[in-house]
Amino acid sequence: QQDTKQRKAEHVQIVLNEDVTGKGITTGFERYRFEHQALPEIDFDSISLQTNFLDKTLATPLLVSSMTGGTHETGNINRVLATAAQERGWALALGSMRVAIENPETHATFQMRPFAPDIPILINLGAIQLNRGIGLDQCRQIVEIADADALILHLNPMQEVFQPNGDTNFAGLLQKIEALSKKLDVPVGVKEVGWGIHGSLAKQLYDCGVHFIDVAGAGGTSWSQVESFRSTPILKRAADAFLDWGIPTADCIYDVRKKVLNGFLIASGGLQSGVDVAKSIALGANLAGFGRFLLRDAVDEPSKLVERMAQVELELKLAMFGVGAVTIDSLGHKFINRIG
Amino acid sequence: QQDTKQRKAEHVQIVLNEDVTGKGITTGFERYRFEHQALPEIDFDSISLQTNFLDKTLATPLLVSSMTGGTHETGNINRVLATAAQERGWALALGSMRVAIENPETHATFQMRPFAPDIPILINLGAIQLNRGIGLDQCRQIVEIADADALILHLNPMQEVFQPNGDTNFAGLLQKIEALSKKLDVPVGVKEVGWGIHGSLAKQLYDCGVHFIDVAGAGGTSWSQVESFRSTPILKRAADAFLDWGIPTADCIYDVRKKVLNGFLIASGGLQSGVDVAKSIALGANLAGFGRFLLRDAVDEPSKLVERMAQVELELKLAMFGVGAVTIDSLGHKFINRIG
Amino acid sequence: QQDTKQRKAEHVQIVLNEDVTGKGITTGFERYRFEHQALPEIDFDSISLQTNFLDKTLATPLLVSSMTGGTHETGNINRVLATAAQERGWALALGSMRVAIENPETHATFQMRPFAPDIPILINLGAIQLNRGIGLDQCRQIVEIADADALILHLNPMQEVFQPNGDTNFAGLLQKIEALSKKLDVPVGVKEVGWGIHGSLAKQLYDCGVHFIDVAGAGGTSWSQVESFRSTPILKRAADAFLDWGIPTADCIYDVRKKVLNGFLIASGGLQSGVDVAKSIALGANLAGFGRFLLRDAVDEPSKLVERMAQVELELKLAMFGVGAVTIDSLGHKFINRIG
Amino acid sequence: QQDTKQRKAEHVQIVLNEDVTGKGITTGFERYRFEHQALPEIDFDSISLQTNFLDKTLATPLLVSSMTGGTHETGNINRVLATAAQERGWALALGSMRVAIENPETHATFQMRPFAPDIPILINLGAIQLNRGIGLDQCRQIVEIADADALILHLNPMQEVFQPNGDTNFAGLLQKIEALSKKLDVPVGVKEVGWGIHGSLAKQLYDCGVHFIDVAGAGGTSWSQVESFRSTPILKRAADAFLDWGIPTADCIYDVRKKVLNGFLIASGGLQSGVDVAKSIALGANLAGFGRFLLRDAVDEPSKLVERMAQVELELKLAMFGVGAVTIDSLGHKFINRIG
Ligand SMILES: Cc1cc2nc3c(=O)[nH]c(=O)nc-3n(C[C@H](O)[C@@H](O)[C@H](O)COP(=O)(O)O)c2cc1C
Ligand SMILES: Cc1cc2nc3c(=O)[nH]c(=O)nc-3n(C[C@H](O)[C@@H](O)[C@H](O)COP(=O)(O)O)c2cc1C
Ligand SMILES: Cc1cc2nc3c(=O)[nH]c(=O)nc-3n(C[C@H](O)[C@@H](O)[C@H](O)COP(=O)(O)O)c2cc1C
Ligand SMILES: Cc1cc2nc3c(=O)[nH]c(=O)nc-3n(C[C@H](O)[C@@H](O)[C@H](O)COP(=O)(O)O)c2cc1C
Repeated sequence: QQDTKQRKAEHVQIVLNEDVTGKGITTGFERYRFEHQALPEIDFDSISLQTNFLDKTLATPLLVSSMTGGTHETGNINRVLATAAQERGWALALGSMRVAIENPETHATFQMRPFAPDIPILINLGAIQLNRGIGLDQCRQIVEIADADALILHLNPMQEVFQPNGDTNFAGLLQKIEALSKKLDVPVGVKEVGWGIHGSLAKQLYDCGVHFIDVAGAGGTSWSQVESFRSTPILKRAADAFLDWGIPTADCIYDVRKKVLNGFLIASGGLQSGVDVAKSIALGANLAGFGRFLLRDAVDEPSKLVERMAQVELELKLAMFGVGAVTIDSLGHKFINRIG
Repeated sequence: QQDTKQRKAEHVQIVLNEDVTGKGITTGFERYRFEHQALPEIDFDSISLQTNFLDKTLATPLLVSSMTGGTHETGNINRVLATAAQERGWALALGSMRVAIENPETHATFQMRPFAPDIPILINLGAIQLNRGIGLDQCRQIVEIADADALILHLNPMQEVFQPNGDTNFAGLLQKIEALSKKLDVPVGVKEVGWGIHGSLAKQLYDCGVHFIDVAGAGGTSWSQVESFRSTPILKRAADAFLDWGIPTADCIYDVRKKVLNGFLIASGGLQSGVDVAKSIALGANLAGFGRFLLRDAVDEPSKLVERMAQVELELKLAMFGVGAVTIDSLGHKFINRIG
Repeated sequence: QQDTKQRKAEHVQIVLNEDVTGKGITTGFERYRFEHQALPEIDFDSISLQTNFLDKTLATPLLVSSMTGGTHETGNINRVLATAAQERGWALALGSMRVAIENPETHATFQMRPFAPDIPILINLGAIQLNRGIGLDQCRQIVEIADADALILHLNPMQEVFQPNGDTNFAGLLQKIEALSKKLDVPVGVKEVGWGIHGSLAKQLYDCGVHFIDVAGAGGTSWSQVESFRSTPILKRAADAFLDWGIPTADCIYDVRKKVLNGFLIASGGLQSGVDVAKSIALGANLAGFGRFLLRDAVDEPSKLVERMAQVELELKLAMFGVGAVTIDSLGHKFINRIG
Repeated sequence: QQDTKQRKAEHVQIVLNEDVTGKGITTGFERYRFEHQALPEIDFDSISLQTNFLDKTLATPLLVSSMTGGTHETGNINRVLATAAQERGWALALGSMRVAIENPETHATFQMRPFAPDIPILINLGAIQLNRGIGLDQCRQIVEIADADALILHLNPMQEVFQPNGDTNFAGLLQKIEALSKKLDVPVGVKEVGWGIHGSLAKQLYDCGVHFIDVAGAGGTSWSQVESFRSTPILKRAADAFLDWGIPTADCIYDVRKKVLNGFLIASGGLQSGVDVAKSIALGANLAGFGRFLLRDAVDEPSKLVERMAQVELELKLAMFGVGAVTIDSLGHKFINRIG
């Protein structure tokens, strides 16, 4: 358990201080361009970012992606993120709560409801834990600890295999995800961590009762690279061959939406601006998440974090204005063209 | 009003001294190549650039794009531009005359008829002003002040939203443009300012009675970038995400001409040479405009401006010679191929 | 004969010390990307690389490509390669045995069976030798010397013509290859040396009774470049024009498999990682070979060689895990997409 | 006349000392790749480059392109080129003989027959001269002076317009070319000088009785650039806009051969190696010409010129060997693929 805590703290350090961006792969957003509308025929002030998620009304279609928790420092990061998310009306996802299951002293680092009374809070667990003795009871327990609106399970096979003692038996998980989705009192979502989810898998997952999917695609952080900094020499060298692994975020969204018309869909993985958010939504996402992009401010300059989030919102509004869309719902395919 | 004056003066300075060229986007002219005609079967000396615009005969199919006016210095710039345009037979567009409506002392900076007796003079106003109390009367007034042949309204939604107190209610404008076009005594045109007009909008505008359209496309100056130098920190940072916004100039022309066979069409936005002019015309434009390209000479070396304009004309003639076209009218699609 | 020995020794030196990688051409593997499977539904530990080749079971679908032999030093290299191949369960190919036919004192440098009792050993000869007096008898002789499981003939027309006294009469070889394939007691394969074998030729060869083909494609070492270091000034300069000659390895595999559904196929030529191996197999290869990639360790740090081979295997397993393939046989086309 | 002499001498200096290669355009040969044939089934020594041109048998399908003559120095260059062409069996084209028509003292600089008794000698004249008083008589005269096998007229509209007093009336030339072709005692060919000839024009020319065409395409020397070094400031600046003008050499050949199945066709313009020659021929050319590539040796190291020509021949043979073609006639489309 000490390991898990330490790992989460190290992740933050590695992600902030090393070059962990994938090479030879991009998010794919640069291959799409909005068709500028010179006469938008709307009032900028009438643009609304309001959306619904997990039976709550959100001021924005934005999400703080699952990142951290479990130690003193990462608990502080969570509080900074939670406070800002509440202020700006973003949904909030917390990092994996595996550590919390057997370490009551870590619970406080995940208890963000006091700081974020109005927004959806998502707790996070590796789906692989369902193969390691974690079941409905423990999930209920962590939902309760965090007073969460939903649980989002991450699929991270390539991250696990790049860890020296990673959990690498991914057999039979779909069934367990299905069972959990049907029995847990809050909705269950599924995400990747940076290599993406393609359309066929998304369809399988929705069909199993999963309530929402976050593609968490490639083009941002390479998690094999991140883990390689903490791994054996042989895995470290192997990571080089996987720097371009994964499905670009934009391609995931496009592919999932092509195969599943209605599933609730979150875009994340390497997003850098409100324009990326706008593209995600135009391509079919309902929400868009940011992880690493928010981390430096959250760690170094908590006071700037709200401003950075406001900047993303503003960019999103500016993009909507530039195509003449007043609501998130109306920001559709027709506004965007593939250019590459 | 002081603001407006100052803004126009600052625009000139920013455009001349800062890197305000869009990134990640080009005019698109480099994706077209003329098919060289080794045996043009024409006499270079018989090539004529003559064209008609606004019931006047013009020596060239060229336009000095709307840029400035309103202050002592910008008035001087206008006089330099007007004198050169008259000498070379280019049409002349002036910068926005909003400032002139309530500031009689600025009128002289827009009165270019004495310097340009024979060429079409276009005055300019933001279409957005039609939502801000400006109407037929004021338009008539400024037409009269400048003794103008036409009024060209600019659509600049993305520029307005990047200004701290920009006018950002673009609702209901089409109707007002239609009304004005039908009632004003001189023809009314519509232009963008650097993000382009696509074919469907052009069709709507022509159908409303607009007499000509200047696509003013992307690939040259990024106006979000220009405004960011005068804006709030948050807008300044947001401008980065819009450096590649807009529709490349060449794509605009192609698209407008595909959807509207006959409307009078002006190409502008990032043009750099007479070859770009030739490509514009081959793609379907009737006239081609230059803004920033002329500005440095107009400000720093007025004496060189005429030479630079002559260079553009010469390059246009050279390109026409290279494909064997003697008149602007005959410079059509068949001479050009898409290569990228 | 002295020449032949010396040449093989010089090849090793040139390949290790000069820039002999082709320019303007790549293996083509970068134009393919696996479709990441976020929920592989397999246990990493159940992944097996086991395969069959030449009636033997191999722990891996990997091959040490034909490289060297004939001198004291290169004999040592062979022993290092053989020992490692035996340890890791790779097949082992030796360099050309022409020199051994008339030089009994070189035999020991090709006798690797004591070091590699369990794996397939392939001996190698230039197919061109069949036009130079070498026939069934000599082939039988060298099979025996090396206690080989198969003979693989290399086609190297472009290498021969870049040698001052190369053997450049390639007429009538197909027939001789056919005769040899039908009569030799061990299976006969055919390979290139770095410019590739296309689908139509592969079909011809299989139809003639050749048992397996190694495409040995372009994108890695340029053998015209290697030979140019030992050649006349005029050939040296000519080599520049051939730096991009050949068929990219990935294209060879794709093309051969399109034209021949069942022939046993080896991918080699510029492979750099287990991901390249996985792509080769997904594109239709049965085995994948490495030459230059293994050479430096074999020469400079024999103790590291096994680790490097283990790294390739690990990367291959990681890639299989990332798409959810448990066996080499199941690693097929459906997992891979062309992206460029 | 002094001008013409001087110009030809200056051309040599500019071409050797300035950067006059077009930018933003290439020959296009890099977009084609031969399909390597690992088993060519031919003897390298049986490869023959022999071809026929102008009723003579030539040892190679190669041509020294029209370059120079008229002054003491350029006469020497011609002699060096002629001697080498005779030795290697290349056809020889001389530079424009306009200067010779009224300057008997220059005749010796074009009289290469003594140095090149066996090969076709082509004399050269600007087609534009037919609009400047030059006619059948003068053409007969220069054929006789040079004891030429053919006259090749160059089309150079873009070169003329970039000269201060260029001849720029290209009207009515086709008819005059037709008349001359029909009446002159030796065959008449037509070439460009570096911007290429497209298929439709080639068809027109062949239909008029022109005996052969040299595309002289783009991707090598930009002649607007060359002339700009000798021109007015305005033309010098204009040259920048024409650095990418023209039709890539490879595209010309492809296009001409698509439209005209049988016309005798010469590829030139930017060729750099025997591989480029092989590609030209595979794309449909009968002969391939080199200009600037030979010039430096011809001027600086005459003794190296023969070796450089031998290198081109060798590279051509090597390419033929690499695809298994024994004769120039058999080197066809099927051996080459478009890759870009
Ligand atoms: C420091 C850090 C820690 C992370 N920890 C987790 C985690 O515990 N659980 C999880 O599902 N994803 C985790 N992620 C991955 C993000 O949630 C990622 O999947 C999401 O797509 C955001 O991508 P981005 O960082 O490129 O914006 C982490 C990301 C970062 C940067
Ligand atoms: C300094 C400057 C000031 C400008 N001011 C105006 C203006 O007042 N009204 C307008 O419609 N466009 C204005 N423009 C935009 C140009 O008219 C632009 O739309 C046109 O396409 C020329 O583009 P170019 O500068 O890339 O050549 C201005 C451009 C510049 C460079
Ligand atoms: C030093 C060296 C020597 C080689 N000698 C031979 C040889 O004797 N016979 C042969 O068929 N190929 C020889 N090859 C070529 C390899 O077997 C090559 O065909 C194979 O595709 C491996 O390519 P790679 O070196 O790019 O991995 C040699 C390669 C190297 C690097
Ligand atoms: C120095 C020099 C002088 C030339 N002079 C002539 C000339 O007098 N007449 C002509 O038709 N072409 C002339 N050319 C053009 C070549 O013949 C050219 O058309 C041919 O395609 C060779 O191209 P390359 O120089 O790129 O190999 C000249 C080229 C060079 C480099």
